[in-house]
Amino acid sequence: MQRYYYSYHEFREDLKTLTHKIDEEFDTLLPIARGGLSMGQLLGEYYAIRKVYAINTIGYDDTQKLKSVEVLNLPDLSDSHRILILDDIIDSGDTIKAVLERLQRLYPTKTFKVASIFYKPSASIEPNYWVREAKGWIDFFWTVDLKEQV
Amino acid sequence: MQRYYYSYHEFREDLKTLTHKIDEEFDTLLPIARGGLSMGQLLGEYYAIRKVYAINTIGYDDTQKLKSVEVLNLPDLSDSHRILILDDIIDSGDTIKAVLERLQRLYPTKTFKVASIFYKPSASIEPNYWVREAKGWIDFFWTVDLKEQV
Repeated sequence: MQRYYYSYHEFREDLKTLTHKIDEEFDTLLPIARGGLSMGQLLGEYYAIRKVYAINTIGYDDTQKLKSVEVLNLPDLSDSHRILILDDIIDSGDTIKAVLERLQRLYPTKTFKVASIFYKPSASIEPNYWVREAKGWIDFFWTVDLKEQV
Repeated sequence: MQRYYYSYHEFREDLKTLTHKIDEEFDTLLPIARGGLSMGQLLGEYYAIRKVYAINTIGYDDTQKLKSVEVLNLPDLSDSHRILILDDIIDSGDTIKAVLERLQRLYPTKTFKVASIFYKPSASIEPNYWVREAKGWIDFFWTVDLKEQV
């Protein structure tokens, strides 16, 4: 399988591209941990949004090849109206679907949109904003940079 | 005032230094948003800790020059035992003190430690682990990198 190192430099350029694509305003960013955390920090700074609330998920693979996703640490969104959910990659789409369903049930009158850097067209859901098509195996800088002996 | 650009490259090297200093195990990382989010992502990957739970704070400056800090979105730590709180910089120490007090009151039997990259010796509290003394004004890469016209 094709293996690709995704550097901080590319991440920074992709986030710039993402900010050019995002053509509406949000008052809250909701990164999914861990993948969306750096995005949340840089985009929060860029948009001067202090409401950057993380959310956690746990995926369970059961024997029927159906993935169930538990959503943890839901933030209090009572003072939020337009929320942008962030994740590094939309792969199967199972995680983001579970997060969206949970949030829309809890807060039916609020607007939720999704932004990711990578997106696999085979996913069950397409983010509202995304930058790159995911191909092969990606070595994200946040996964490998502390391990490298440079 | 001295002005200093803090790059991703330095951040990466400082996180490596931090992992050399941290000489105990944790099962949970608790980044304070927004400053600790990238740290949480990279250290979570490095230590293979999935429990990376963000916490939010709001600081209010009142007229008496006393800063009061509200702590929001406390995660469920019932399955956690040894928790490392993360922030980019311990400046006055007010934020981290408020977070520690709130967490220790809620979870008196759990262990909470603090790690930061920057630390000002004039702060009211010293983190258990830190890398650099903060001097002058720091332009963090997560604050300026998306704004630059490079």
